[in-house]
Amino acid sequence: MPETKSEDYRVVGRKVKRVDALEKINGQARFAADISFDRQVHCALVIAGTAHGILRSIDTSEALQIEGVEGIFTWKDVPGENQLGEVIKDMPCLVKLGDRVRYYGDVVAVVAARDRQTAELAAGFVKLQIDELEPVLSIEEALQDRILVHEATNNRVSKRIRKGDAQGVLRESECVFEGEFYAHYQEQAYMEPQGITVVPDLDYGFTVYGTMQCPYYVQTAISNVLGLPMSRIRVIQTETGGAFGGKEDVPSYVASYASIAAFNLKRPAQIIYSREIDIQTTSKRHPVKSFYRVAMEGKKIKAVEVRAYMDMGAYATLSPVVMFRTLVHAAGAYEIDNVSIDTYGVYTNKVPPGAFRGFGSPQVLFAIESMIDDIAQRLGIDPLEIREENTLRPGSKTSTGHLIEESVGAPVTLAKVKESSKWYQLMEETIAFNSTNSDRKRGVGISHIYYGVSLGAGGQFLDKSGAHVLINKDGSVEVRIGGTEMGQGAKTVIAMIASQELGQRMDKIIVHQPDTAFVPDSGPTVASRTTIYSGNAVRNACGNLKAKLSKVFMESFSGDSDLPIFEEGIVRDGRGHEITFDSLANAAYSANVKLFESGWYETPKLSFDMEKGIGEAYVTYSYASQVVQVEVDMTTGSTRVIKAFTAHDVGKAINPDGVIGQIQGGFVQGMGYALYEDLKLVNGKILSDNFNTYIIPTIHEVPQDLVIDIVESPFPDGPYGAKGIGEPSLMPVPASIANAVSMAIGKRVRQIPITPEYVLRLIEEKKD
Amino acid sequence: MPETKSEDYRVVGRKVKRVDALEKINGQARFAADISFDRQVHCALVIAGTAHGILRSIDTSEALQIEGVEGIFTWKDVPGENQLGEVIKDMPCLVKLGDRVRYYGDVVAVVAARDRQTAELAAGFVKLQIDELEPVLSIEEALQDRILVHEATNNRVSKRIRKGDAQGVLRESECVFEGEFYAHYQEQAYMEPQGITVVPDLDYGFTVYGTMQCPYYVQTAISNVLGLPMSRIRVIQTETGGAFGGKEDVPSYVASYASIAAFNLKRPAQIIYSREIDIQTTSKRHPVKSFYRVAMEGKKIKAVEVRAYMDMGAYATLSPVVMFRTLVHAAGAYEIDNVSIDTYGVYTNKVPPGAFRGFGSPQVLFAIESMIDDIAQRLGIDPLEIREENTLRPGSKTSTGHLIEESVGAPVTLAKVKESSKWYQLMEETIAFNSTNSDRKRGVGISHIYYGVSLGAGGQFLDKSGAHVLINKDGSVEVRIGGTEMGQGAKTVIAMIASQELGQRMDKIIVHQPDTAFVPDSGPTVASRTTIYSGNAVRNACGNLKAKLSKVFMESFSGDSDLPIFEEGIVRDGRGHEITFDSLANAAYSANVKLFESGWYETPKLSFDMEKGIGEAYVTYSYASQVVQVEVDMTTGSTRVIKAFTAHDVGKAINPDGVIGQIQGGFVQGMGYALYEDLKLVNGKILSDNFNTYIIPTIHEVPQDLVIDIVESPFPDGPYGAKGIGEPSLMPVPASIANAVSMAIGKRVRQIPITPEYVLRLIEEKKD
Repeated sequence: MPETKSEDYRVVGRKVKRVDALEKINGQARFAADISFDRQVHCALVIAGTAHGILRSIDTSEALQIEGVEGIFTWKDVPGENQLGEVIKDMPCLVKLGDRVRYYGDVVAVVAARDRQTAELAAGFVKLQIDELEPVLSIEEALQDRILVHEATNNRVSKRIRKGDAQGVLRESECVFEGEFYAHYQEQAYMEPQGITVVPDLDYGFTVYGTMQCPYYVQTAISNVLGLPMSRIRVIQTETGGAFGGKEDVPSYVASYASIAAFNLKRPAQIIYSREIDIQTTSKRHPVKSFYRVAMEGKKIKAVEVRAYMDMGAYATLSPVVMFRTLVHAAGAYEIDNVSIDTYGVYTNKVPPGAFRGFGSPQVLFAIESMIDDIAQRLGIDPLEIREENTLRPGSKTSTGHLIEESVGAPVTLAKVKESSKWYQLMEETIAFNSTNSDRKRGVGISHIYYGVSLGAGGQFLDKSGAHVLINKDGSVEVRIGGTEMGQGAKTVIAMIASQELGQRMDKIIVHQPDTAFVPDSGPTVASRTTIYSGNAVRNACGNLKAKLSKVFMESFSGDSDLPIFEEGIVRDGRGHEITFDSLANAAYSANVKLFESGWYETPKLSFDMEKGIGEAYVTYSYASQVVQVEVDMTTGSTRVIKAFTAHDVGKAINPDGVIGQIQGGFVQGMGYALYEDLKLVNGKILSDNFNTYIIPTIHEVPQDLVIDIVESPFPDGPYGAKGIGEPSLMPVPASIANAVSMAIGKRVRQIPITPEYVLRLIEEKKD
Repeated sequence: MPETKSEDYRVVGRKVKRVDALEKINGQARFAADISFDRQVHCALVIAGTAHGILRSIDTSEALQIEGVEGIFTWKDVPGENQLGEVIKDMPCLVKLGDRVRYYGDVVAVVAARDRQTAELAAGFVKLQIDELEPVLSIEEALQDRILVHEATNNRVSKRIRKGDAQGVLRESECVFEGEFYAHYQEQAYMEPQGITVVPDLDYGFTVYGTMQCPYYVQTAISNVLGLPMSRIRVIQTETGGAFGGKEDVPSYVASYASIAAFNLKRPAQIIYSREIDIQTTSKRHPVKSFYRVAMEGKKIKAVEVRAYMDMGAYATLSPVVMFRTLVHAAGAYEIDNVSIDTYGVYTNKVPPGAFRGFGSPQVLFAIESMIDDIAQRLGIDPLEIREENTLRPGSKTSTGHLIEESVGAPVTLAKVKESSKWYQLMEETIAFNSTNSDRKRGVGISHIYYGVSLGAGGQFLDKSGAHVLINKDGSVEVRIGGTEMGQGAKTVIAMIASQELGQRMDKIIVHQPDTAFVPDSGPTVASRTTIYSGNAVRNACGNLKAKLSKVFMESFSGDSDLPIFEEGIVRDGRGHEITFDSLANAAYSANVKLFESGWYETPKLSFDMEKGIGEAYVTYSYASQVVQVEVDMTTGSTRVIKAFTAHDVGKAINPDGVIGQIQGGFVQGMGYALYEDLKLVNGKILSDNFNTYIIPTIHEVPQDLVIDIVESPFPDGPYGAKGIGEPSLMPVPASIANAVSMAIGKRVRQIPITPEYVLRLIEEKKD
């Protein structure tokens, strides 16, 4: 299946059993709510319940009467700084009396009780008096600055790219196209809701357990909220049932609430969010409104101008960094000489969106790919061919002027889906189907995307990773990394890398739950960076360990041996010497050889001009092309994906099964975003706060034909050439589906989700 | 006070606050019994209650009826190997049906219940049927081999030294002295009894918490008993309330019992020993019977011949390694050309002794120092002068022929106590006192010892240590070592070393509880080796970290700076550049610099011939000289130490207050051994199984005058020149007191403890 037959390895690139499968299937795995400590209290939150206002009083007297309530904590009980926020500290931990409430889910108090039911019951009896203010509920209202969510302006954050002279070219060009697009919220809909337990520990600090992506964010947040040095805060990730960005910054807030209870009561404190509180109060994908202008010359894109507005909700949280990705991806996977992009983040009195698989890029990739499709149709160019013409290729410069010479699989992914979908034939069949059907219409859509791997120029200062690898004297290997397993398969890939590097058998290797005490700040587990960053750190440590074992091997044969080969638990040289890995480890211990190492990987330095948005935006890029066929029920407006063909340049598929799993999962989540998931808000309150009203795809919606091609255009700095796949798996989907629906109904789709109501409206508009 | 004014350091050698003092005083410290886990069961042991026999049946039916009992586990429930023993695996974990019971405290079953009271109650209802056999209760009986405790012979273990021609010299010599000595058991009498909790953990293995010296021994033992790889067993030491060797191997057994309950119930299982079970079943100092012959030529010792017999009890446990130290120390701190030593370990049907501060050496040091004293008296030589004449000094060879050229402070410690005690004047005063008093008699005694630091030639394969040092981005420093804090002050010394090396303030450094997952097998925390081994490992890691921080410092001034100096949390160079350590750490993180390191120290290789007992027995030696004055009540036979003067060559006192504390504590414990502590056994059952019958010294027995001299003759391989002090603090005490009592009563003391009954018997014998 791989395009380039890359080097063959004993473990890497082969079929293996997922290392965490058994425990997750047999119920032994312990997620956040499965752990429990002696004398533990359970917490519940008292939230504002109002989009905008001034907090005038908090009356806990009645709630404190309820039997089993152990304490209720407000801003006065925060021992350190009552402030949260990863990038801009604009968010209170617990809203202070007399201060502003800025969204419905703002947290005012934490109730601790002997069980969760009592805590949640008591939370309902805490009485808040809030003087209501008129809320800001849309991007348009926010831009008016009539009502301010914070100080000075609602338009707090912006970024831009100025490459070539887009305005000039657009002004001069005879062939200019315009488009306006809107992408709505998407809820991460992880299976496991937010949950944290904070425990006073043996070392006179606090250990934090919970479901999360970024233990280091949590460590820093709690250190700040409790006013303790980081050495007193230790964070251990529990098995995590999905995250998708929704557990990037949010667990820092969840943990802060629990830590206040634990600190004040000197007891373990657990908080497990109900689904309703989770959806109501935690981050989503940002709504983005974007305006495009594109100048063409023949099939060639000459200039692109974009303005994109992100709804940051009440607090900036991760928006400034999400926006960097929006910026870099807004012009798509194309070589365009003239690019002008402006992205803005505006405050509103709504839930603050944050990280979500794709991180600000799917919204604009949907837009640019819709634009390109629209242009192709208007110019009578085949939509695949227009992409072939303009795609990034080795030697291209990206929209930020980054010259990319290696690991640019974009032309190959396009070729792959062209081939697998039988593009021209599929198009013809679809047209034929439509000519004979009127109640159901089919469409074919294509999309083509690129994805900047890891944190990039905006997050270079966070872009490193550590590992701690220890070989016991029985040969069992223990690996700890700074990255987290959240279901994406990190543990399996890391175990494979350790197995490949050390030549020890997979079943002798354990990748433990991450723990900040072993490996210090390794940046967040986001941005599809874990395989490269943690993987390289593990290789670094394993390389040192193997060198030591080799030395012990050679010394044990008194110099009468060659440098040994390590494979599948056996160490041997070319002269017939052989010993098990386990025995060699034991011999090394007896010789007092050090068999634990800290590994490290830091990002290659990037040169980037933030003022102009020009330079090396990311260390490398992943690429994907996708073709889908959909069928629209013209009476109900509902859409079904029939077939999908997707090709991804991942550099190297270390665990091909895992890569395929990611692509399948990303496809389905992207399909949900494109078609079904519709967050309903009224006055800043989320109405669709559970899965009975917020509809996500089920197995029935997954197309029977989902053909996956893995392209391996190796990235020299990645382990064995690997790049990221976590997010690119989702990113082409909204655009390909939107383009397919547009073809089916003969009318350009300009928003996602493409709900039946919206489809019917477009059909109606077309008739007019 | 130090002899040699060694190099001055900013932290090392200065007065600091003990880092673990506050939590131990305010009650926040959590010892083994202070921790508790959700759903935890409490365990109690069913012991044989018979010294020797065949286990015929175990009836748990009645015990299982007791409400709150969750399970009773026997040999059938051991999932792995039902075998224990650090050196020789001769000890069952739980005695198998049909197998031999070999001492009163042999463990047959583990009862788990909802609380400790129920578990202990139920243990009493488990009915054992044991066919009794005649027990072996003394060294003499054991040597007959009439009844065998194990197979083949009771005289299982022996070691020897053959240096020069001791037999020949003794045969030819005209001046030969003989002596026979006996040193009885001593109970470690740690404040905190044995206690372990085994918890099924988040990583699908077991985490073991408890009071212990040697987490790696526990890890290996449980891995074996549960049949799981070491990667699934993690051991974390809780705050430990004293150990003194009594928590070297014993916690491996305690943990094994608890682990069987945890494994079978899949629940946390805790076992906390009652004082009675602790004294009845766990290790003590070995009783040693020794026979000395010494040939003199003038003041010079020409030859020494020793036979020493150790009572190993029912199982070998640590006896083979304890015996190595007995062997090496049996001829004392003297340069003697002809040495013949044989040490034997014999099995008896009694509690197995093991490690105890001094580890087999105090028994024979008491003997050799008594011999030397006796000889001096008989030859009319001043007892101090005979030691000055024969002492080891730079350039001497030890009894194993080890040429020692550096760090030999023995002549200096002798000179120190001569001076501090005003030796001749004290002697005269004492004689004067005795001439005018008949109901009370005083005596002055001297002793002079040496101590081989760390594990030595017999334990080289264990003699390494690791460290894990991590600097957070707020500058807080986290240190983890393979050695344990058991009250001796390891955490403070390690924090001082980290502070010295990194130049960070002490209050920003935390030394965490040891955890096998961070630092792999670092050998045991015994043999006064922690300061050297863990200390050097920490220096190793800190050196690498400091180099990285220096680089960041210099880069931040664009090469316009010198190599900086790190002191008290400030980093500065000679050109006026200055930054706080905390800010520099933060800058390093932003530059993606790795700020965690694994450190290591391995022992210098020793060359030693085990057959002849010749070679480099230990990496270095500590030395001590001591003078005491005692007063004996001639009517009651009771002895009181009035004054003591002690001088110790510790290489370098990193924490002088800690060294003094160790010397004070060791003195008192040695005094208990010499005078008060008397373990009473009948048929292998210990009668004095609590502190109402087993009498240890109190504050009232401590002499008002305990004058301490610290001699610093630096050991080049030790951190800042440091050697060990933990054990040498106790080792001279029994001999100096015995010599003083001998002078007071005018009759040679030949056994310890020197109980009032024994003193009265000697006084009686003298009259005869």
